[in-house]
Amino acid sequence: MSDFAGWMHARKERLERALETVLPPATLSPTRLHEAMRYAVLGGGKRVRPLLAFAAGELASANPQRVERVAAAVELIHVYSLVHDDLPCMDDDVLRRGRPTCHVAFDEATALLVGDALQTLAFHLLAEQPLAQEAASHLDMIRLLATAAGSRGMAGGQAIDLESTGRELSLPELEIMHIHKTGELIRAATLLGARCGEGLSAGEIERLDRFSKFAGLAFQVIDDVLDAESDTATLGKTAGKDAHQNKPTYVSLLGASRARAFAGELRSQALQALDVFGERAQRLRELIDFIVLRIH
Amino acid sequence: MSDFAGWMHARKERLERALETVLPPATLSPTRLHEAMRYAVLGGGKRVRPLLAFAAGELASANPQRVERVAAAVELIHVYSLVHDDLPCMDDDVLRRGRPTCHVAFDEATALLVGDALQTLAFHLLAEQPLAQEAASHLDMIRLLATAAGSRGMAGGQAIDLESTGRELSLPELEIMHIHKTGELIRAATLLGARCGEGLSAGEIERLDRFSKFAGLAFQVIDDVLDAESDTATLGKTAGKDAHQNKPTYVSLLGASRARAFAGELRSQALQALDVFGERAQRLRELIDFIVLRIH
Repeated sequence: MSDFAGWMHARKERLERALETVLPPATLSPTRLHEAMRYAVLGGGKRVRPLLAFAAGELASANPQRVERVAAAVELIHVYSLVHDDLPCMDDDVLRRGRPTCHVAFDEATALLVGDALQTLAFHLLAEQPLAQEAASHLDMIRLLATAAGSRGMAGGQAIDLESTGRELSLPELEIMHIHKTGELIRAATLLGARCGEGLSAGEIERLDRFSKFAGLAFQVIDDVLDAESDTATLGKTAGKDAHQNKPTYVSLLGASRARAFAGELRSQALQALDVFGERAQRLRELIDFIVLRIH
Repeated sequence: MSDFAGWMHARKERLERALETVLPPATLSPTRLHEAMRYAVLGGGKRVRPLLAFAAGELASANPQRVERVAAAVELIHVYSLVHDDLPCMDDDVLRRGRPTCHVAFDEATALLVGDALQTLAFHLLAEQPLAQEAASHLDMIRLLATAAGSRGMAGGQAIDLESTGRELSLPELEIMHIHKTGELIRAATLLGARCGEGLSAGEIERLDRFSKFAGLAFQVIDDVLDAESDTATLGKTAGKDAHQNKPTYVSLLGASRARAFAGELRSQALQALDVFGERAQRLRELIDFIVLRIH
């Protein structure tokens, strides 16, 4: 087994090629929209969700082409949410992945359409065949992504976020917001990757589900810490935004040091959920460390 | 066969109930988002696309529950596009279906999320089973909707529209814009309705495809005429917007009278495409008249 950095690099390369292929070329009409879609998606990002899909897919001995498609679809949903989240009527942010946000580089109306079209593309991609042995299972996977992205998942988390700005949240309320806003899609990435294969039992899928929930929450806690402690150049997006916008975060509720400790606990629980897999879950273990120890 | 008005009323009722059921209740968290989704979708609209799906489905002797689902999914996509299209960064409109637009009744950020979540819900609904005898055909139907809605379909049409505002367009350029912006989804509604059944031959589907293309363009030509000639109270949306925004339309290119004549020609060609079906296509014939002769 190659080292983690090498594994990660290779998977990110494969994802990039998959995204390159699935995105319409910038020379195709409407060219400005296609150019903006490619600008928003390609050449940046930590790609945490796709990496989780790859690692879970490999654990389930899944067909690599299927996992690639699932990884790309989840990333398209993630990027659409970033593009819309950065719009003036939402977070009004100018910097993302170290570059001007989509509506700054292009314009607001184009960025709106970029997000819309990226979401459509994600479902288009996921409806290509075959993703699973059984058609019922394939449809189930499409619904899994839709549930994770929709009003009871990611979009719902954004709505809770809107309602929460400027309010005091309790720790459980904050957790509910983040389970929706980031957790659901991280969970979907992991489960969809695994479900591309037939290699895991229902019990093992259940352990993976548990892992993904802890991983998603740990990701968000660290995100809050980095927003508070890091600088804009390191993050590649505007730092200190949460405090500036008076958003409740794990740092505002717990302080940075206890938030870091909480992320550590979540990491332990995520690792524990992987025990059943032994050596086979090595990549997922490395990914949870990547999530918790990252500096941007 | 009952009269057309009765048929239409019954189908709109069924659609309304289907939408009522598929939309999350307004009491479910996040309540403001769910309330806004219901506000945007329920209790209004001509429902032309669903009616085309119903008529085509009945022509193909399709299972009514399947057709209902397809009709609702297409309408969700249509409403999401209206909600986003009305936003300040796009058409900046305050009136839709005789009521304040979603971002006026709620707020911009919520309207953005409403559109996003409605699109997700459309694909969720379309991935419920079974829609077709063959799984491959079901997946094909999901891709058909995605193609119609995406950057080479409806969203692409919006992008071409953005690029065209204030410019002179030739008649072919205008047609290309509208084929994308409205035509593709009207085509998808018709074909998806038909494909819920097994009753039509490939040749018959091809005729239906031809019909839907003429119907879609006729719909848009009449839309342009009504925007120029009707008043806001009758339309339930702001009249005279195209001229005000200096948008190229069939009226600005042809004048209202020649535009109406053009719609009449498109109607004739749509009807001709239906010849092969004889009496069985009566509802579709009535629908093309409904589209061309409507006053709002």
